[in-house]
Amino acid sequence: MSRTVYLNGDYLPEAEARVSVFDRGFVMADGVYEVVSVLDGKLIDFEGHQARLKRSLDALEIRNPLSDDEYLTAFRELVQRNGIDEGLVYLQVTRGNPGDRDFAYPPADTPPTVVAFTQSKPGLADNPAARTGLKIVTLPDERWGRRDIKTVQLLYPSMAKMAAKAQGADDAWLVQDGTVTEGTSNNAYILRGNTIITRELSHDILHGITRQAVLRFADEAQMSVEERAFTPDEAKSADEAFITSASAFVMPVVEIDGTPVGSGKPGPVAARLREIYIDEMRRRAI
Amino acid sequence: MSRTVYLNGDYLPEAEARVSVFDRGFVMADGVYEVVSVLDGKLIDFEGHQARLKRSLDALEIRNPLSDDEYLTAFRELVQRNGIDEGLVYLQVTRGNPGDRDFAYPPADTPPTVVAFTQSKPGLADNPAARTGLKIVTLPDERWGRRDIKTVQLLYPSMAKMAAKAQGADDAWLVQDGTVTEGTSNNAYILRGNTIITRELSHDILHGITRQAVLRFADEAQMSVEERAFTPDEAKSADEAFITSASAFVMPVVEIDGTPVGSGKPGPVAARLREIYIDEMRRRAI
Repeated sequence: MSRTVYLNGDYLPEAEARVSVFDRGFVMADGVYEVVSVLDGKLIDFEGHQARLKRSLDALEIRNPLSDDEYLTAFRELVQRNGIDEGLVYLQVTRGNPGDRDFAYPPADTPPTVVAFTQSKPGLADNPAARTGLKIVTLPDERWGRRDIKTVQLLYPSMAKMAAKAQGADDAWLVQDGTVTEGTSNNAYILRGNTIITRELSHDILHGITRQAVLRFADEAQMSVEERAFTPDEAKSADEAFITSASAFVMPVVEIDGTPVGSGKPGPVAARLREIYIDEMRRRAI
Repeated sequence: MSRTVYLNGDYLPEAEARVSVFDRGFVMADGVYEVVSVLDGKLIDFEGHQARLKRSLDALEIRNPLSDDEYLTAFRELVQRNGIDEGLVYLQVTRGNPGDRDFAYPPADTPPTVVAFTQSKPGLADNPAARTGLKIVTLPDERWGRRDIKTVQLLYPSMAKMAAKAQGADDAWLVQDGTVTEGTSNNAYILRGNTIITRELSHDILHGITRQAVLRFADEAQMSVEERAFTPDEAKSADEAFITSASAFVMPVVEIDGTPVGSGKPGPVAARLREIYIDEMRRRAI
């Protein structure tokens, strides 16, 4: 069965979901995106992702073309039409199609392009990777300076993932001026004793929606949280390491640049945070 | 009359030139481009742009889907069908449409997407801006680390051009660690006495095809060329300043951050280099 894709108000068979070659998203990477996970056919932290979508669009002065309710209706329609039980909804909004290519922004009344589609991911919650943990390599962070805006400029993260795989690893942590910024598409954490350490929010990293929730749950679970940069060496000698993202939730890291982290097996804190996150988010899913 | 656009072997009315929303160019900015100018209905430095296209594709491990001859045929067909006397041909090659979104590269047999279109620019050679010169502001260089690969990750250059216009300027020069890297979509030069100074080639700047030709002509005209970084202050106190790009050719800069450069009018060396470049390139156009 062909997937149904949302494009500018229409629900189309995926093969018909096409945009102009003049779309700013295609010729200028002038667009932002969000990924919302689906569990039990319901949306995880929809409000958090809507809030960040607005921040990204505001930062780029792209008009938000739909209301929260319109996005919610479209997401639910896609989940239902595509029969998604566990998976995700991907949303992309670009500055639209001005009908030609120009570095200058098009007139303000140019309608933004809105695309949304689903991916079915059975086993998203009961993910085998959570039981084995991820192997990570560190690579230089070569991305642009505004990683807090969730743009589609994903070429470097894509290249870094391929480089990590070529080294036999699952993913990469990116290093800038000697400290870890974040993963290629996730936030990075280490644990020392009862303290979770993760880089503070700035232009250098994505302001993860999952990060925000996990740090709140950690606080509620009486753990201390230190928001600061850490070095790859500090990570290698940590008690645990893990990542968070909207689709990986909380995922343990068991090896960094060939060095086992802690016991070299998924740690209890990452496992516990994953469990709390999934339970809480499942309860609040809409 | 509707423009004709080249898309994967077809010549289409521009309104029908559309790509899948799953194209890597749309969801990952995973594509490269070239711009070739047209004078007298002929292509300027086609070979130089083909050589750089190959370097960009190689750097990203994207297969080059067409031969030089096939690109040439397509470009000429577009120029002819769209009646371009002065203007440009834009070419974009992406990693293609894998049918879904994934950070990992698609299988190697996924056909790259090839799009080409023309823009008519009467007055490209006899450009009034060359007689008045450009006003430039300096802005921080926030782009990614591999500006030598000509990718479609053009959001920051686009933002910087808009910021420059908001300050009443024509364009911006980007500054990193205290020195000018280049313009938003052009290479940057200053003149001190008989010496042209422009940043050396590295990952920090685009390896301009026009830059290469202009430096050769400068050398032939007995001027000395110093390839090194310069500061905004050095630029403001220079005798002349200018930029080069495939569509601006050589264009004088008369003001930087509100400070007039030299006489505050287009300088004779920039004017002479522009004339030589256009004459030579017109002669060799194909």
